Amino acid sequence: MIDLVELEKIRQLKYRYLRCVDLKLWEEIGDVFTPDATADYGTPSAGRPLDLKCREDIVAFLRDSLGNGIITLHAAGQPEIQIDGYEATGTWRFTDMVLAVDFRVVISGAAFYEDRYLRGDDGQWRISHTGYVRLFESTMSLDDWPSWKLTANRWAS
Amino acid sequence: MIDLVELEKIRQLKYRYLRCVDLKLWEEIGDVFTPDATADYGTPSAGRPLDLKCREDIVAFLRDSLGNGIITLHAAGQPEIQIDGYEATGTWRFTDMVLAVDFRVVISGAAFYEDRYLRGDDGQWRISHTGYVRLFESTMSLDDWPSWKLTANRWAS
Amino acid sequence: MIDLVELEKIRQLKYRYLRCVDLKLWEEIGDVFTPDATADYGTPSAGRPLDLKCREDIVAFLRDSLGNGIITLHAAGQPEIQIDGYEATGTWRFTDMVLAVDFRVVISGAAFYEDRYLRGDDGQWRISHTGYVRLFESTMSLDDWPSWKLTANRWAS
Repeated sequence: MIDLVELEKIRQLKYRYLRCVDLKLWEEIGDVFTPDATADYGTPSAGRPLDLKCREDIVAFLRDSLGNGIITLHAAGQPEIQIDGYEATGTWRFTDMVLAVDFRVVISGAAFYEDRYLRGDDGQWRISHTGYVRLFESTMSLDDWPSWKLTANRWAS
Repeated sequence: MIDLVELEKIRQLKYRYLRCVDLKLWEEIGDVFTPDATADYGTPSAGRPLDLKCREDIVAFLRDSLGNGIITLHAAGQPEIQIDGYEATGTWRFTDMVLAVDFRVVISGAAFYEDRYLRGDDGQWRISHTGYVRLFESTMSLDDWPSWKLTANRWAS
Repeated sequence: MIDLVELEKIRQLKYRYLRCVDLKLWEEIGDVFTPDATADYGTPSAGRPLDLKCREDIVAFLRDSLGNGIITLHAAGQPEIQIDGYEATGTWRFTDMVLAVDFRVVISGAAFYEDRYLRGDDGQWRISHTGYVRLFESTMSLDDWPSWKLTANRWAS
């Protein structure tokens, strides 16, 4: 059977995470992760794969990357969540937009998140792993539209 | 405890509001608001703050602003809704796109809605307040891409 | 009364359909449709109305249209679902983006889906009809921004 209350709690967990990122709520965001949470964000535009190994590293990465010169929008929907006791998995359609204001550069892309969640002894769900393989990612300069280029393409041979 | 039925009713209320805006259903939209509903939409591109004080004013503003020369898309998701008896609050991630066809101008932006809802004696939830502070808003001419400019930036110092 | 479990099943059905399209899961996608499902997608950019008459035709159309040279993102949200026994209807806000990589052409648009669903003897919900009238659709070349043009506009007189 579908446990609708736990499903709703997991959705709200994910929404809180996304809101904390875009509103730069670095104090509040830590509690959405388990202490040993891992994150595997593909971000080819930034010139590196990310493979973060604990809550502190994830929060530090976000805080250090996303200062006030950066506007971000991380939007997720279409949750397909499976709960098995104290564990759960979730697939989400995801788009992100990162606008580096002073550089007039926009990075945008899409992916499907593949998350794992754990319910703690306190009854709270937390993210134990989050990651995705991008459908695509693109960058462009706002001064020069033909500068648009693909930096990731899941279907490239 | 989470009252899932009331949560669903509030989500459907918000979805009906958004659909009525984009489909220009000005007769149907009134009933989503309480008579004394307030709206605080930040719209710097239109050269004014909006601070609407009742249902009639909100509906009149939408109908007068969004004629057939304007295509709009208002998309909200990631609802974080708290219910306390006959009152509720909701935070939503939001993006909007306004396309003034004849002028070949596009305004687009993002925000987090902060709404309040009331359940009436008839059991129906209605919006008693809706508003947001923008993450960003931008305008551009479709004939001239470097014309793109930010008209709102939450993080600007 | 609202049957929340069946609502969730229908949402997950729609999310699986959308994910299968964007991840090109042509083996998995068939089971989201009834055998005699119909699809009415307005796609003026492709130079034809589509009016597909069975599951096999829908899947064949998607597989033939969306090869590895095409990146797609189909995003739906704001579900307004009504269930009546073994039948249901659903309205969804929808945006799509189709990127023809080699041609550096992007098609993007928005619509409201009007779907119908049926619950089979096996207890599974399937899509019996899906379709939409577009709010708008646009095409552009990534090499030439003023090439942007509207190919559909619901409000054009």
